[in-house]
Amino acid sequence: MITKMNCRKISFLGMLLFAMLNCSAQSIPEWKMIHPGIWKAVIGKPDAMTLLSVADATPNLEAMSKLPKGSFPLPQGEISMSVVDHKTYLRFPLEKGEQLYGLGLNFKNVNQRGKIFNLHVDHYNGEDNGRTHAPVPFYVSSKGYGVLIDAARYITVYAGTGVRTDTKNPPELLDRNTSKNWKAHPYSDAVEMLVPADGVAVYVFEGPTPMQVVQRYNLMNGGGYLPPKWGLGFTQRVPTLYSQTDILKEVQEFKEHAFPLDFIGVEPGWQSMAYPCTFEWDKTRFPNPKSFIDSLSAQGIRSNLWMNPYVSPVGSLYPKLKPLSASHTVWNGIIPDITLPKTQQIFKDHFIKEHLSLGVSGYKMDETDGFDSWLWPDVTTFPSGYSAEQMRQMYGLKMQRMTAGWFKEMNKRTFGLTRASNAGSSGLPYVIYNDYYDHKDFITALVNSSFIGILWTPEVRASKTAEEWVRRIQSVCFSPMAMLNAWADGTKPWSFPEVEKAVQDVAQLRMQLLPYIYNCFSQYHFEGKPPFRSMQLVEGFRFSTKDQYMMGDQIIVAPMFAGEKTRTVHFPEGKWYDFYTGDFVGENQPLVITASLEKIPLFVRDGGIIPMVPPHFHAPAQGEKLALEIRHYGKMPASIELYDDDGVSFDYEKGMHSKTQLVVTKNEKGELKGNMIRRSTDKVFSYKEDVVWKFMTSK
Amino acid sequence: MITKMNCRKISFLGMLLFAMLNCSAQSIPEWKMIHPGIWKAVIGKPDAMTLLSVADATPNLEAMSKLPKGSFPLPQGEISMSVVDHKTYLRFPLEKGEQLYGLGLNFKNVNQRGKIFNLHVDHYNGEDNGRTHAPVPFYVSSKGYGVLIDAARYITVYAGTGVRTDTKNPPELLDRNTSKNWKAHPYSDAVEMLVPADGVAVYVFEGPTPMQVVQRYNLMNGGGYLPPKWGLGFTQRVPTLYSQTDILKEVQEFKEHAFPLDFIGVEPGWQSMAYPCTFEWDKTRFPNPKSFIDSLSAQGIRSNLWMNPYVSPVGSLYPKLKPLSASHTVWNGIIPDITLPKTQQIFKDHFIKEHLSLGVSGYKMDETDGFDSWLWPDVTTFPSGYSAEQMRQMYGLKMQRMTAGWFKEMNKRTFGLTRASNAGSSGLPYVIYNDYYDHKDFITALVNSSFIGILWTPEVRASKTAEEWVRRIQSVCFSPMAMLNAWADGTKPWSFPEVEKAVQDVAQLRMQLLPYIYNCFSQYHFEGKPPFRSMQLVEGFRFSTKDQYMMGDQIIVAPMFAGEKTRTVHFPEGKWYDFYTGDFVGENQPLVITASLEKIPLFVRDGGIIPMVPPHFHAPAQGEKLALEIRHYGKMPASIELYDDDGVSFDYEKGMHSKTQLVVTKNEKGELKGNMIRRSTDKVFSYKEDVVWKFMTSK
Repeated sequence: MITKMNCRKISFLGMLLFAMLNCSAQSIPEWKMIHPGIWKAVIGKPDAMTLLSVADATPNLEAMSKLPKGSFPLPQGEISMSVVDHKTYLRFPLEKGEQLYGLGLNFKNVNQRGKIFNLHVDHYNGEDNGRTHAPVPFYVSSKGYGVLIDAARYITVYAGTGVRTDTKNPPELLDRNTSKNWKAHPYSDAVEMLVPADGVAVYVFEGPTPMQVVQRYNLMNGGGYLPPKWGLGFTQRVPTLYSQTDILKEVQEFKEHAFPLDFIGVEPGWQSMAYPCTFEWDKTRFPNPKSFIDSLSAQGIRSNLWMNPYVSPVGSLYPKLKPLSASHTVWNGIIPDITLPKTQQIFKDHFIKEHLSLGVSGYKMDETDGFDSWLWPDVTTFPSGYSAEQMRQMYGLKMQRMTAGWFKEMNKRTFGLTRASNAGSSGLPYVIYNDYYDHKDFITALVNSSFIGILWTPEVRASKTAEEWVRRIQSVCFSPMAMLNAWADGTKPWSFPEVEKAVQDVAQLRMQLLPYIYNCFSQYHFEGKPPFRSMQLVEGFRFSTKDQYMMGDQIIVAPMFAGEKTRTVHFPEGKWYDFYTGDFVGENQPLVITASLEKIPLFVRDGGIIPMVPPHFHAPAQGEKLALEIRHYGKMPASIELYDDDGVSFDYEKGMHSKTQLVVTKNEKGELKGNMIRRSTDKVFSYKEDVVWKFMTSK
Repeated sequence: MITKMNCRKISFLGMLLFAMLNCSAQSIPEWKMIHPGIWKAVIGKPDAMTLLSVADATPNLEAMSKLPKGSFPLPQGEISMSVVDHKTYLRFPLEKGEQLYGLGLNFKNVNQRGKIFNLHVDHYNGEDNGRTHAPVPFYVSSKGYGVLIDAARYITVYAGTGVRTDTKNPPELLDRNTSKNWKAHPYSDAVEMLVPADGVAVYVFEGPTPMQVVQRYNLMNGGGYLPPKWGLGFTQRVPTLYSQTDILKEVQEFKEHAFPLDFIGVEPGWQSMAYPCTFEWDKTRFPNPKSFIDSLSAQGIRSNLWMNPYVSPVGSLYPKLKPLSASHTVWNGIIPDITLPKTQQIFKDHFIKEHLSLGVSGYKMDETDGFDSWLWPDVTTFPSGYSAEQMRQMYGLKMQRMTAGWFKEMNKRTFGLTRASNAGSSGLPYVIYNDYYDHKDFITALVNSSFIGILWTPEVRASKTAEEWVRRIQSVCFSPMAMLNAWADGTKPWSFPEVEKAVQDVAQLRMQLLPYIYNCFSQYHFEGKPPFRSMQLVEGFRFSTKDQYMMGDQIIVAPMFAGEKTRTVHFPEGKWYDFYTGDFVGENQPLVITASLEKIPLFVRDGGIIPMVPPHFHAPAQGEKLALEIRHYGKMPASIELYDDDGVSFDYEKGMHSKTQLVVTKNEKGELKGNMIRRSTDKVFSYKEDVVWKFMTSK
């Protein structure tokens, strides 16, 4: 207990501190433009390890410099930052009518203003509260700027909820006794954040549009990852105890059902022990891993291995990693401190020898997210001295970075799965997935993924009805990874025979659209534009929607959900056409549409050019060439670049790629004509020279 | 980004830190017995303001010294404490089969082992996760010891979930691929806690029984509060905009319906502005507060005023408190820094002048709990220099302490309501209530309140059916405060005419039982035994239950819930008898019982002595004396002390009370006989000398 004397003393010191704090809150931090349109300010002493330092990306300055040049997008005097008692206080102004996007992989809402988040890597548990697989501390304003807090900490964000006594925009004073307009949440004019660290680096991104903010963010993080072509084909994850024989049989079944398949996900059973893991092949189920992978490879199929990072005492890695691991275990497995170079080397040696050198094409890295009662507690200590909190925020990110590096060194692209990510991950070859299984919320997550430089797959596992099955498969085919995850349920694409044809059709439609989708990913890489993106990133879009999205610049995807025969689609400015028929549908309006069970509603903008290939079962092999059918929608002349490269290596970074012009012109009679214009320097990769143009609207 | 050089350097320093930390974790803290059976250890530099310093109680050492003397109840070498990077890490051992109780006012579960909490003052939102009205950092072990962390911080508690690599009791290693016994939550042998502070004081309480742990905890905090007798009568909270005329009319209606009423809760409308508050009478609705209160008083009715602490700019307190308030507002009201003596004085002057001197008997202190989007954000700063986190954890507690002091100075007991509390509150005159309204969960909260030194009322507001109405009123009549809260719904006890008689009966039963209930509270005060308590505090109780509880030492309350005609009651050792009939029911067993709508199942232990008075409408006035009917149940001879005092003042602290012996003896023929033995020094207060003994079983 404190005496009255002490009380007074404390109060006096407190008042002094309060005065100082108010003063420091007035001070204007120094903003330095570090990249074109990206400003940085540092307050206090930031942590040695931050999210961006873990992601360790090389910014694409050239691409950034092509974006419009403006100026610092916020009134600097209204930003305040201070450090008190080992915590950093941040405040950024908000205008009336301004909306905020991002702040982690949220599943329920796209508009984040008025919400409170404690950004925390965790399994998403049904509430947009900051606990999610990618709690990226980055928000994009509808006013065309972005703010990133680069700290691997549990950051609390008040996204327009708090009201300061000294605010310039006070809410109206109302008496709850008598006023019907009284509000439980009075108007707030700021985003405020509490970072439990002695300081932090903050980045502000210029637009002028929200899309350009996102582009700058992605380009700073190296540009989006360009997956190998096979990564964009269909993937099936097999039941957990499948043996190599079972899997080869499964591949045969895919052939019999004429269903595309590019890579197989091998679940925990490949390991001699799982939860915790040995990372070693189980001799019974996989007596000959090399011949197994060769056999897949001969059929054009890649393999992806499941893992979690917790090391079993019975595996060969255990004695090596034990001294480099945390104070606590997860499922009896030690937790390697992957910030240590020695840990990374031990993992690398083992994984390259045991998996990569055999031809393994990628990993599914599970269980780096949560729940709290599964993962290491916050009282865990790590040999590096980083706190459990810091490790929690960056473990999934670091796993991505580490494994991506191995493939990069082999000049081989990979494309895998991760349960946890964070800021800076745009250039990393991983897609997030989870156990939550609400179809609509899965689509909202896909929408939200586009603000924060991550990829998300609304994976299909099981369904109650054939209708749900086909609707889910339709939307996963219009996502970064077309995956059926049958680890627990043993489902196959043809599990509902009554819709087998519809399922096959949409999977084949994805395969036909691969040139377009690959193009979208090349945009992600070279320009920073997300391949699957929120409508809120479309210029002039004046609605708010969380259940439809853009695939690239040209196509609106409006998924249907089980039990619903109609839905509302919100169309941006310009005329929009039905993908399947080429018919005009709407412009700058909400419209109720009806869709048959067989089709996922897709709409193409006026002047949309969609390069397609014939149905095929795998991504083209080296040297294999496919015929192009190029569709044009609407009535406007237009042109796009068709990107191509070898589809598997990083040679494209050295210029080994082609950007072929696809041009549609209109003559005096109003007739449209298509031209493919190859530059002499453009190498031909997967597309044949002869092209069929299809004018979908002007037939 | 950090270079490789830096990385190595950091890693080396980290390894060093890790080694030091592991070392400090091995060190044994110094435990000092500060009170009989209570040990304290300090690690690092605790905060100046702690929960116990705010509660500011005077321990009852004499009562503590009467409890059995033992020794430090845990293996000291297995407790570890360390401070790293401004955070305190704590670890306490657990044995196999040990169960944990407490850790805040939880609504879903009584057994807390295996759960994770972030103790955080908040409105309870349907999940036992630490966010609750009284997130008391105290747990009681079934092995008979308790642990208290005295910090006004968001403490994370892993109540037996984490597993250290160096544990002496490792869980079994299993392969999830092949073992059906694989567990998502392997066995954990410790409670681990993370306190975001530079140090902390920890208290360990000896038993040897869980009840004695709770007694020591309550006695350290001054013993439980002894409410005024009127506080144990019935209370009605009136609709928010009721005027003084409306209220006096309501009192009249209570008389007409022959329904007991001891105090009226006056809701926000008494103030000239609410949300934020002026704390001033509204001249329209309450033109003459003094005559209003006098008029109530003349009818034996007290008044309780609603408030929240956020000060309206239009009130007279605003200019005085503005310089003593926080950086942020709540509903446009400033947040006074009540840790400052000057703030306390301003409040005291105003409240005494405007309310207490008029005869106001207490307060309902609302909105000090949450939600986050209502309350001040964690980025708020306060003139005292205490953080928003610290203020959040103690604001409700401090409000209780401050207002309790005013009444104490007037030698007048009060009994009111608070939405937020914390450790150290046993001796404070407030009952917690909330907006959550699940009847079963309300009972579990009542069970859990007994572990952590708080009082809880399962208040009644509205019901869908007459059955629900009577069931809810029955259980609130067997709780610390028998309250109908009609602020929003305008309900009356007789709102469902078809059950008016049953409602009246149970309210009158409470009035009849007041001598017994007052006795229970005197036990709370003098011995630290909670008046309403978990079955887990009954010695030898070998079941686990969350929907029945003890009222004092003698009575089991087993509430019925709407829609249920039967329920299971778990009986402790010894024989138990039906309260209404005196018939034997069960012993040391679970039993399915049936209950009519009119009665709440109550069971009395063998030898139970229950002092009762005739039905009456208010607590006895000064000098008023009631006839005693003393019931005996079962066949055993027994004796109890019947406590009494003036029921309104603190004179009992100076010995102005009586403890009359009620003795039942058995003669050679096996006949029972009752005797009331008054000591010559015992002053007579509310009970007449002539007593009717009623042997319920041996009729």
